[in-house]
Amino acid sequence: MLFFRNDYGQGCTSRILELLAQANEADNPGYGTDQYCQRARELLASRMPDHDPVIHFLVGGTIVNLTVLRHILRPYEGVYSPDTGHIAVHETGSVEATGHKVITVPNASGKITPAALRKAHSQFQLIFEHMVMPRAVYISNATELGTVYTRKELEDLRAICDEFQLYLIMDGARLGNALESGVDYDLNDLAGWCDAFTIGATKNGALFGEALVIMNRKLQPYFRFTEKQSGAMLAKGWLLGLQFIGLFEDDAWFENARHANELAMTIQNRVKELGYPLLLTSETNQIFVVVTQQEYEYLSTRVDFEIWEQWNDDIIVRFVTSWHTTQEEAEYLCVYLEEARNQDSLPEPEED
Amino acid sequence: MLFFRNDYGQGCTSRILELLAQANEADNPGYGTDQYCQRARELLASRMPDHDPVIHFLVGGTIVNLTVLRHILRPYEGVYSPDTGHIAVHETGSVEATGHKVITVPNASGKITPAALRKAHSQFQLIFEHMVMPRAVYISNATELGTVYTRKELEDLRAICDEFQLYLIMDGARLGNALESGVDYDLNDLAGWCDAFTIGATKNGALFGEALVIMNRKLQPYFRFTEKQSGAMLAKGWLLGLQFIGLFEDDAWFENARHANELAMTIQNRVKELGYPLLLTSETNQIFVVVTQQEYEYLSTRVDFEIWEQWNDDIIVRFVTSWHTTQEEAEYLCVYLEEARNQDSLPEPEED
Amino acid sequence: MLFFRNDYGQGCTSRILELLAQANEADNPGYGTDQYCQRARELLASRMPDHDPVIHFLVGGTIVNLTVLRHILRPYEGVYSPDTGHIAVHETGSVEATGHKVITVPNASGKITPAALRKAHSQFQLIFEHMVMPRAVYISNATELGTVYTRKELEDLRAICDEFQLYLIMDGARLGNALESGVDYDLNDLAGWCDAFTIGATKNGALFGEALVIMNRKLQPYFRFTEKQSGAMLAKGWLLGLQFIGLFEDDAWFENARHANELAMTIQNRVKELGYPLLLTSETNQIFVVVTQQEYEYLSTRVDFEIWEQWNDDIIVRFVTSWHTTQEEAEYLCVYLEEARNQDSLPEPEED
Amino acid sequence: MLFFRNDYGQGCTSRILELLAQANEADNPGYGTDQYCQRARELLASRMPDHDPVIHFLVGGTIVNLTVLRHILRPYEGVYSPDTGHIAVHETGSVEATGHKVITVPNASGKITPAALRKAHSQFQLIFEHMVMPRAVYISNATELGTVYTRKELEDLRAICDEFQLYLIMDGARLGNALESGVDYDLNDLAGWCDAFTIGATKNGALFGEALVIMNRKLQPYFRFTEKQSGAMLAKGWLLGLQFIGLFEDDAWFENARHANELAMTIQNRVKELGYPLLLTSETNQIFVVVTQQEYEYLSTRVDFEIWEQWNDDIIVRFVTSWHTTQEEAEYLCVYLEEARNQDSLPEPEED
Repeated sequence: MLFFRNDYGQGCTSRILELLAQANEADNPGYGTDQYCQRARELLASRMPDHDPVIHFLVGGTIVNLTVLRHILRPYEGVYSPDTGHIAVHETGSVEATGHKVITVPNASGKITPAALRKAHSQFQLIFEHMVMPRAVYISNATELGTVYTRKELEDLRAICDEFQLYLIMDGARLGNALESGVDYDLNDLAGWCDAFTIGATKNGALFGEALVIMNRKLQPYFRFTEKQSGAMLAKGWLLGLQFIGLFEDDAWFENARHANELAMTIQNRVKELGYPLLLTSETNQIFVVVTQQEYEYLSTRVDFEIWEQWNDDIIVRFVTSWHTTQEEAEYLCVYLEEARNQDSLPEPEED
Repeated sequence: MLFFRNDYGQGCTSRILELLAQANEADNPGYGTDQYCQRARELLASRMPDHDPVIHFLVGGTIVNLTVLRHILRPYEGVYSPDTGHIAVHETGSVEATGHKVITVPNASGKITPAALRKAHSQFQLIFEHMVMPRAVYISNATELGTVYTRKELEDLRAICDEFQLYLIMDGARLGNALESGVDYDLNDLAGWCDAFTIGATKNGALFGEALVIMNRKLQPYFRFTEKQSGAMLAKGWLLGLQFIGLFEDDAWFENARHANELAMTIQNRVKELGYPLLLTSETNQIFVVVTQQEYEYLSTRVDFEIWEQWNDDIIVRFVTSWHTTQEEAEYLCVYLEEARNQDSLPEPEED
Repeated sequence: MLFFRNDYGQGCTSRILELLAQANEADNPGYGTDQYCQRARELLASRMPDHDPVIHFLVGGTIVNLTVLRHILRPYEGVYSPDTGHIAVHETGSVEATGHKVITVPNASGKITPAALRKAHSQFQLIFEHMVMPRAVYISNATELGTVYTRKELEDLRAICDEFQLYLIMDGARLGNALESGVDYDLNDLAGWCDAFTIGATKNGALFGEALVIMNRKLQPYFRFTEKQSGAMLAKGWLLGLQFIGLFEDDAWFENARHANELAMTIQNRVKELGYPLLLTSETNQIFVVVTQQEYEYLSTRVDFEIWEQWNDDIIVRFVTSWHTTQEEAEYLCVYLEEARNQDSLPEPEED
Repeated sequence: MLFFRNDYGQGCTSRILELLAQANEADNPGYGTDQYCQRARELLASRMPDHDPVIHFLVGGTIVNLTVLRHILRPYEGVYSPDTGHIAVHETGSVEATGHKVITVPNASGKITPAALRKAHSQFQLIFEHMVMPRAVYISNATELGTVYTRKELEDLRAICDEFQLYLIMDGARLGNALESGVDYDLNDLAGWCDAFTIGATKNGALFGEALVIMNRKLQPYFRFTEKQSGAMLAKGWLLGLQFIGLFEDDAWFENARHANELAMTIQNRVKELGYPLLLTSETNQIFVVVTQQEYEYLSTRVDFEIWEQWNDDIIVRFVTSWHTTQEEAEYLCVYLEEARNQDSLPEPEED
């Protein structure tokens, strides 16, 4: 069966496996204080030459989100998120569990637009102690719907954050895919815009790992205390360093993402040609296709993928490509999509 | 330099590395719903034939402790811990961060004795809403000081827990070492005594991983919600399954621990022969030795180890053996210890 | 200046003041274990003859809401609230601060309709650990917009709660106003529908005080522990008992509410006659009127009231009546409203 | 029956009752923004002429403690408390419920001595993220055992707090009793030593109320947000203002405390003369007496008081005087104590 369920279904690149085997017998201090993490920090920092980032490595997306937000927010402060944001929907209330309100902003194709942020914030602008004080803006880039923020949008969000003393926090679980989608900005730019952001590896060729980059100096001190308290500090922390070495010692992290994006674009183009409606036009490695019940049944016996949601009588399904997806698999998927589509257009068997 | 700093300084057994390489390309569902985790659960359950355990795999010790305690405790409930317990001292207040008081009980060689528990509980026995309601007893086995609970102690603690409706929670970060220390109980017995306990792999040959075994049926439902909310659910959860397959498909988990214990006993015996005072007599893979400042300086240039605490003018140091320690390394350590000791006994250089 | 700002701007009924003076010298045990609280519990229970309620007295609305919700919810559980609900908007994220997500449901005139609840819940119906598990439904009656749930609505909400194992929690800060708005149900009915609800006194003639009525037996045990932990247990708890004796030894609580409602209806009717638009038709003691900027300025120098929100170029203002408002004050307000309105209709001064 | 159970068993001074009656009909804005609170703030500030305090009024001791500590601590920070401290023992883990560890320090007669604080802090002095970071020192003055800090002790604690960047937080639930115990410091001095402290009214003649005085400018902003979020903001906040006006418009707060202290000293002296052992010598209005089982039985039918704890075969009981206790009641208690004692010294009835 073809696998288009997600981008974290397989292990890691062969290079990371190699690094693991090489490092396996070395003696290492624990908790990320080792030479591999140090090397990985340097590799990442070298991609942000105009900045002086503080970098921590955590295992996964939910733990890094909850840890950074509880670290930076005071008890009465809340965080804006698009209503499609991962922290708002799919992390089981983990931010609320740290005591903070997630203030949802209606999304536009998965994004918080500058206009939407400004409107949402207008109701909080008076210092008014009966309401939560918004202090951070959480966005994902690429978004949960496969879209990507433009340079203009990010600059404008940054400006609004400056105006209202809000922290801009970017969830980069799929940041590679965003940066390889044709945008005119890079890690160095992001380091200038965000107070903190993550560089995701789990979904881009590593066994696990999100690098948390804290840019705002005020937020840097004592993060390791919050990290340890949250159970987010890996004993054999050097394993995380290895993942990022494997992805950043050369351009693997970028290439993996470009590869996934390219296959996705191939598939999305074919989907359009075949006349399937799309939930929206993706710019990265996740494609959201509206299929009929009959098409769904045809596809689901041949392809492993996820139902996104019901849409009247139809079904929105999600196909995800990754560093691991092959050209051949993408082509097969296109064939199945075509067959499912044609099946529909066949006349229904006549009764007689 | 010899490494006796801890039991998580190196990677994993060659078998686990092999399993990782084999499984690397397979397509897996996420979050521990895969076949490897399933197989690992069966392997563990087969060691508890009289019971029907529910098993989850989490990455590390702190996250599993805080997740299980917040799962089982109601807001006003607290947990007993020896004052040397990991949750009381070295997890940065992670249990308190979930809202629950850790009620410390004076330890006896790292343990809560049944008598100490009964005494501590006597002050809470009246239902009295101005005090926290104790609801759980947290113990580590082996303890943070290398000691091991006897069958009698565990049976008595269980009886007290039954008497006062307390949950018995055992932190098994070094459970292999406890079970291989010569005790007359096994995993099957523990499953009968504990409401929940962990089977540690991080410190016994795996890259990471603690298996949480929940025995009390009342505590089993919805654990995955608390787990996800705590950021404790690994995306590529099958990696955790692989660790436990590698350790439990045969007796590797037991053999690793026995190996570490045996080397530790060799060293501890030699330490005694050399006349070093011990903080206490260890039964497992951690040895606590009192050394002079001069001895410390001699050793610290040759061996990587940890200072435990100051003791008047002397220093208590900790040597830890592991699955990875070799016979040869243990012998070298004994030689250095002898040299450090003799150095002491040499007459101080005369001045003339 | 006329006072229509809120229903908690003055002290208490003369009867309560009298009771305070009488009881002032008596010796009382602390924390609500006194005879006055006992008497007040009996008075309240006598209004729910078909039920066996457990009743606690807390000082205010926010503290009772956060205390009851943290008491009844497990860590991963959330609570539905209309997006206009007090806990969703005006309690500074106090429920989130106890770790629980408030899941907002679009309101219909301040209410959660049965249909809206069913729709909101449809996305959570699969047991799916990546999302919060909804476990409670919070409604206010009367609502924050002055509307009142019908018997049918409450019966239907109860049925949905039964179907999906949700607790129905009613915030009765203005429950007297709801019950005196002409509905065909009473406290006894509410005790049958709600798992817990409050009977508000602060806004109905007392110095302070909300009675929390816990009906669901599963939720009753150990509430006093959560209460004390939340800082919600008043040392001189008998003061709370006195408030409820003063309001329930006869029908004062009902009469106060009826009085406030009647004056509000008088005003609302006059408002309609004068041609002011209403935000919605209120059924109780809060009236929401759309005024022009010019009308606002006229009124604001004569009447103390609250701006609710901007509405394009106009302003929605709120007038609140209470047990303390007099017929004469209501009439004055009507006069001012008329003057403000006529002022508008005057031709603008001509320039020449 | 004589009442020596506590100092919050009766209502309030007649002056406060009078103020309540006078203010009952006035229109007031809510939540402590009224003129009475403003007046009360000025009265308190006038007692600290060298300082510029920020003052909030909260209802009770537990709520003020938990609110101020959650306001000032970051997630990974903890607070020192004597092991006899109210927050450590008798507030149902309310500080832990806000996420913070209470780090207990062995008490000396209910106090943290400077030496004990220095010793406790020595284990945390390294920045070490596996342990909680202590950030505040909580002390009660008078202590829970009736003792009082000396000027020297407070100056030394302040110096240690400066040295280690700790906040000094004083719980003044019985601060009047401390200041009237013969010490050579006053509110103005305390404002110079403490980062925040409370001035208790509940136990000194008011219906309820603790004034929170925040001196450290860094801790002042946005307190009202934390207060509202904690459910600690009273709707009719002017009631709190009235309590403090009643106690501070003249010297009532001081006189009430002096009165209680004097009666207590009378009783304690008599207790000593009668040969009763004391748990410790109290300096304020709480007396801790060791009585036999037989003495206990005699007294308990005549006096309402509290058992403090068992002491071998004997019982430690607590007698508390207050603003409300009369000279006559104190004399009666002395008589009963004498009778109970003599009863003991009678020869046991002979059998024959």
